[in-house]
Amino acid sequence: MGRWEPNARGRLAQAALTLYVEQGFEKTTVAEITARAGLTERTFFRHFADKREVLFYGSDMALGLLAGAIADAPASAAPIDAVAAALQAFSAVVQENPERARLRDAVVSANPELRERELIKLAAWASAMAGALRDRGIPALVASLAAETGIAAFKVAFTRWISEQGEPDLPRIIRESMEDLKSVLTDRAPV
Amino acid sequence: MGRWEPNARGRLAQAALTLYVEQGFEKTTVAEITARAGLTERTFFRHFADKREVLFYGSDMALGLLAGAIADAPASAAPIDAVAAALQAFSAVVQENPERARLRDAVVSANPELRERELIKLAAWASAMAGALRDRGIPALVASLAAETGIAAFKVAFTRWISEQGEPDLPRIIRESMEDLKSVLTDRAPV
Repeated sequence: MGRWEPNARGRLAQAALTLYVEQGFEKTTVAEITARAGLTERTFFRHFADKREVLFYGSDMALGLLAGAIADAPASAAPIDAVAAALQAFSAVVQENPERARLRDAVVSANPELRERELIKLAAWASAMAGALRDRGIPALVASLAAETGIAAFKVAFTRWISEQGEPDLPRIIRESMEDLKSVLTDRAPV
Repeated sequence: MGRWEPNARGRLAQAALTLYVEQGFEKTTVAEITARAGLTERTFFRHFADKREVLFYGSDMALGLLAGAIADAPASAAPIDAVAAALQAFSAVVQENPERARLRDAVVSANPELRERELIKLAAWASAMAGALRDRGIPALVASLAAETGIAAFKVAFTRWISEQGEPDLPRIIRESMEDLKSVLTDRAPV
């Protein structure tokens, strides 16, 4: 094993994202990433299975956070409110580093294979949230509807957050998106 | 070009589905499919690019149907109602051949690569519906929310339809799913 490198994972991720944006995900090699980060390939592979993993290593953590937040919601919380609370908790983490999220989104959007992987990630999150709701005694159908709808609202909110100028606040946008969703579903009048 | 074969596409699709269920998608070859259908490989490749295509060739047609139904909805229809009408129209087509839908679902569910492709299909449908809503003058945010939510409700309804005994009616289940969604989003009381 090599010597311990302070924040190697963060430095590698930052170097990788920058290169993916600069020259494209496909064209970037692990050798270029490690050169940019001033680290060895050996260190890279201690942290990531491959160059794609740099974009998705947080997914499982996010999934755990979402399911955990639903489990921790007050017993009195309605399913959709437990989902909203989970998305709020997650979006507060995303909000800590908007620049990283923007770069990552630009890279993923530009590549069909990465967009597929992103869809799989979101489907896994919906599935985990539905499971956490069922564990609270919510019937399967309601659990799935609440979780899938939450992810739908999250996708829309995230896109809005990414494209807004200034310093938009993701937790706030998520909240508004969930409110908009209620209007969309209940307003009978044309918009 | 070979001679014209009556309903070659349908016979090939049926033979393929049966084989995928019997022995797995991965293990089935185009040669086996054509042998089962009593047709040549040349005929197969006139209809399908590859064996995966047999499971997805209706996707673009469905996408057109969904977008078209939204375009055709009464001018007074709220966005979510236009989406519901489109999903109803599509589900009426699916309902014509429940056995095919069940077999197809079993095959797709059993294979990670096919499940990915299915997610991409649904994302494309949501995107097409959102586009059709924007063409009606609906603001982008509301259009995306309505379309994504509709797909979320469709996924849940379809799963319920597939697993229900007897002769469940997909259009009815979609309608109920959209109604359930409204309750899920507006009921503050725990379920």
